Amino acid sequence: MTAPGGILQAPTDPGWFALAVERQSDLLIDHANCEKKAASTALSLMFAYPEDFELAGRMSRLAREELRHFELVQQKIAELGVVFRRLSPSRYAEGLRRAVRRQEPARRGDLLLCGALIEARSHERFLGLIERLGEPLAGFYASLAAAEARHAGLYLRLADRRMPDAAARLAELAEVEADLATAPDPDFRFHSGTPATRQDHGTA
Amino acid sequence: MTAPGGILQAPTDPGWFALAVERQSDLLIDHANCEKKAASTALSLMFAYPEDFELAGRMSRLAREELRHFELVQQKIAELGVVFRRLSPSRYAEGLRRAVRRQEPARRGDLLLCGALIEARSHERFLGLIERLGEPLAGFYASLAAAEARHAGLYLRLADRRMPDAAARLAELAEVEADLATAPDPDFRFHSGTPATRQDHGTA
Repeated sequence: MTAPGGILQAPTDPGWFALAVERQSDLLIDHANCEKKAASTALSLMFAYPEDFELAGRMSRLAREELRHFELVQQKIAELGVVFRRLSPSRYAEGLRRAVRRQEPARRGDLLLCGALIEARSHERFLGLIERLGEPLAGFYASLAAAEARHAGLYLRLADRRMPDAAARLAELAEVEADLATAPDPDFRFHSGTPATRQDHGTA
Repeated sequence: MTAPGGILQAPTDPGWFALAVERQSDLLIDHANCEKKAASTALSLMFAYPEDFELAGRMSRLAREELRHFELVQQKIAELGVVFRRLSPSRYAEGLRRAVRRQEPARRGDLLLCGALIEARSHERFLGLIERLGEPLAGFYASLAAAEARHAGLYLRLADRRMPDAAARLAELAEVEADLATAPDPDFRFHSGTPATRQDHGTA
């Protein structure tokens, strides 16, 4: 299997980063949503496969770390006086979920590979944000970036041990992921594609 | 508001404890399910009320502690060589959920009060188990009991700050809870009523 950093099939468009710098409040609010969603995804794997003790233990620890990050993002939001608004989820997670096969054991493997791709994309965007954002957010993203790469690696290892064809299937899912993360997107979100316009349609 | 220990309207029947001593494997397996479910409930409150920052922060920390407990129960299951089997959920959580009002803000308050009742019942059962189980489980439950009382207190305080009528509504929900926890139940589970027979119908 490829190293975590190398599994993405397309880099984030500079247009996404330009908008992220402009819309730091939305970036943080949606980042908090993503950490919460990451914990929820880990928990849902624990519920779906309770007899897989290794997976359950790993996902429980992962969910705790995602929740800790959620708390850190909330704290940053409060420190910076960001006014909270509800943001609809981006099309990204739902788009990936549609590519997951329904039958077991293929489903479990696909969910793990999607986890790896999401974490790898977060890591790639964190690195790009560190270069472009001023303080305090550059330092904040620097403090969180290593964890995303580590999470991607964890998901990849778990998938690899449970699938005969992990590498081939990863390439297929990575294509779907790359499209979702780069194709024109109506909304700006942490995992959105390149926003088509500067307008936002997406409050929940 | 009453102190956490005093909010239950009926004690657990000795028949439940007798069966718990007999069926320690199922007790542990369902206990692991309950810790996982407790984390999931906390997370669902974070998703439902993202603008309530105090609630989100408290629930995130609570979910992390429930997950840590889940990991400890899984570890105990492995240490004791308990053979895992899937157990259907008890009627308890679903029964309480049916009593929750649909309209906001009543719904949020009811969910918090239900959280308090579930934690208080866990605490009551942990205390009874400590008296009746031998080692290592007596010591194990002793190490976890204080947290359940603390969680009940947290849910009560959060409800109290968000509802004008918390005490009156708590009394109503406590009646539903007492019935679910003590009326004859087809299955033995951590939060089940008194099992009607020694038979188990309930694998998932």
